[in-house]
Amino acid sequence: MYKGLTEELARKTDSRILLAIIDGVGDVSNAELGGRTPLEAAETPQLDRLASESALGLHIPVSPGITPGSGPAHLALFGYDPVTFNVGRGVLAALGMEFDLEYGDLVARINFCTVDDDGVITDRRAGRISTEKCTELISLISDIEINDVETFVFPVKQHRACVVFRGEGLDDNIEDTDPGLTGKKPVNVTGPGKSARVVREFIMEAGRILHRRHPANFIILRGFSIYKEFPSMRDRFRLSPAVAALYPMYKGVARFVGMDVQICEPEDLDGQARAVKSALESGHDFVFLHHKPADSAGEDGNVPAKIKAIEEFDRHLPSFLKLGFDVVCITGDHSTPCSMKLHSWHPVPVLINGGPQRIGYSKAFSEREALSGALGSFRAMDLMPLLLASAGKLAKFGA
Amino acid sequence: MYKGLTEELARKTDSRILLAIIDGVGDVSNAELGGRTPLEAAETPQLDRLASESALGLHIPVSPGITPGSGPAHLALFGYDPVTFNVGRGVLAALGMEFDLEYGDLVARINFCTVDDDGVITDRRAGRISTEKCTELISLISDIEINDVETFVFPVKQHRACVVFRGEGLDDNIEDTDPGLTGKKPVNVTGPGKSARVVREFIMEAGRILHRRHPANFIILRGFSIYKEFPSMRDRFRLSPAVAALYPMYKGVARFVGMDVQICEPEDLDGQARAVKSALESGHDFVFLHHKPADSAGEDGNVPAKIKAIEEFDRHLPSFLKLGFDVVCITGDHSTPCSMKLHSWHPVPVLINGGPQRIGYSKAFSEREALSGALGSFRAMDLMPLLLASAGKLAKFGA
Repeated sequence: MYKGLTEELARKTDSRILLAIIDGVGDVSNAELGGRTPLEAAETPQLDRLASESALGLHIPVSPGITPGSGPAHLALFGYDPVTFNVGRGVLAALGMEFDLEYGDLVARINFCTVDDDGVITDRRAGRISTEKCTELISLISDIEINDVETFVFPVKQHRACVVFRGEGLDDNIEDTDPGLTGKKPVNVTGPGKSARVVREFIMEAGRILHRRHPANFIILRGFSIYKEFPSMRDRFRLSPAVAALYPMYKGVARFVGMDVQICEPEDLDGQARAVKSALESGHDFVFLHHKPADSAGEDGNVPAKIKAIEEFDRHLPSFLKLGFDVVCITGDHSTPCSMKLHSWHPVPVLINGGPQRIGYSKAFSEREALSGALGSFRAMDLMPLLLASAGKLAKFGA
Repeated sequence: MYKGLTEELARKTDSRILLAIIDGVGDVSNAELGGRTPLEAAETPQLDRLASESALGLHIPVSPGITPGSGPAHLALFGYDPVTFNVGRGVLAALGMEFDLEYGDLVARINFCTVDDDGVITDRRAGRISTEKCTELISLISDIEINDVETFVFPVKQHRACVVFRGEGLDDNIEDTDPGLTGKKPVNVTGPGKSARVVREFIMEAGRILHRRHPANFIILRGFSIYKEFPSMRDRFRLSPAVAALYPMYKGVARFVGMDVQICEPEDLDGQARAVKSALESGHDFVFLHHKPADSAGEDGNVPAKIKAIEEFDRHLPSFLKLGFDVVCITGDHSTPCSMKLHSWHPVPVLINGGPQRIGYSKAFSEREALSGALGSFRAMDLMPLLLASAGKLAKFGA
């Protein structure tokens, strides 16, 4: 098990922590809102009341300037350095697509690409084919059969797809076949091992099938990784963690770090509140609540929808607060500015309520008010020790 | 010698630095004080005047959420990463108890514990026996004689004690015998080396002597460490450092990093001011001044006493300022919130006066005012380079 300072000091107590993530909640100054952010513009009486009694600050999802995908962003908030805990793009992509990975599976990202008659890559993204096209091409190569392994392929987005090989004795000691630039041939998979043989055969067969499918007439593979048991939050932090999320990606990442997935019925914030309640009743002491719509609205560039998503969370907040948590943290996994229609690197407001806290000057839950909070800004990775400390779950370091 | 950027760039100059540590000064919002902290509530005209002419900020003692003991907290402020410079609990405990360690001594922490008839641990802390009981039991095992080494034992606090083995050729390549949980036997000390043999014999003898002393009928040992020469502040930073402290623990840690211990006569802030003056007169250019009572009051949960301790420091401040330092830094080693009666992880206000400084918006020396200071928040580890730079003691890096 990975063992750092936090793991060494973590101790089991009865206190209970809620980590509520409003996905993509952070934003930037928006012209439609006269320079305010959607979070500033939203009517959030519950969050604002809580803010005035809480420690506020901003978390930096990975490091300054780095825009995280949902996987790394959540891993960091759960206390897993997404750079050190190199999960492998393949595995995160597969988890994100709700593929039911088994330990020992070899996973890789597929990129469709364009090669010329000599096999030299002329476009590493095959002209960014549509996701529909990708799905069609994947169905063509989904019948590839390779001795000794089961092979699963599925589309991800645009030219991106994923392959999973399942069988005995696979390893991920395989270089990316993507040379990283055009004008070169894909890197050959060499070596005598089973994995290399399987991957070679798969690429050859796929090349044969895609031969006439210009621009997506070949594939390059990268991010080979074996899905293996991951140090769990249970072992690392002595928590009994659970997740109340509606989207597969978040259930997947949460399960990956050892959270028990709760059934949310109906599939909305009411159902999530019930799920959180039952998680506590069954003895869990850490619950991750995930609220998706703010991120989706950001990705769509839909300011009113983002505001609405935030206000919806605010209205439901009391049904979570009343469940009796000792420490409540509300934040986002990353920013998703409406004006960008993308995830971004901008720091994300964090609120910690409960436990011994220093209350700063923040009067509301927003990007700017968080600047005058007592927590300052810190790496997302550092949130978990702060929550454990707030809940009395970390012993003192040294004499 | 450990050599990082700071060591490479450090240069000797005539400028003089005072590092004044108000132990445990940081606190959290306190209900007794209407949400203020003791530092906010204290009348501190000297500190507040200084604050308006100084750069303020907050230091994070170790890393977010981590509560440090006094040893690690001070090491960090002296520029020694307490995680990297793993001093070993044994050594810090022994220094803290003013034991006169010699280089090559093997030191370990002792915990009295309870074992059942099969030798299985049922309580790793022997019911947290009193310090008096601990002292009595230690006297029983203080006569253990082991071939080839001198053995010293002394009580620390409650079930905690310390053992020092002195002799040729000892090493600290020994695992903790503490299995970390009850229901297991203590971990056996294996291996052929002299240290392992000595430790095995000591544990066996102690077990024999304590046999009928339920609940403290056995010992577990941890934090084995050899006391060795430590890179000194003199070598690392080209300083001539001195300490004016009243408590053994702080003199111990200061001596450990190469500070000259000054006699304080009488044992109060007046005596400390005289000691600081004489340290300067004898050519020292870095003085660590330690003020203890704020921490003790915090540990006792005594808000008025903490306020009084801070005000006492404030009243005496001019007698230190007038001694002619070029750079004066005032901070704490960690927070000791009265409401917790414990050390905590909360960031600690820092003030740097003198040298070229950017003055922020802070109007007083307090946790919240420090939020609007020009220094922002930074790891305690980074304080020393900031002080050296302020005093003109760091050359430029690169051309």
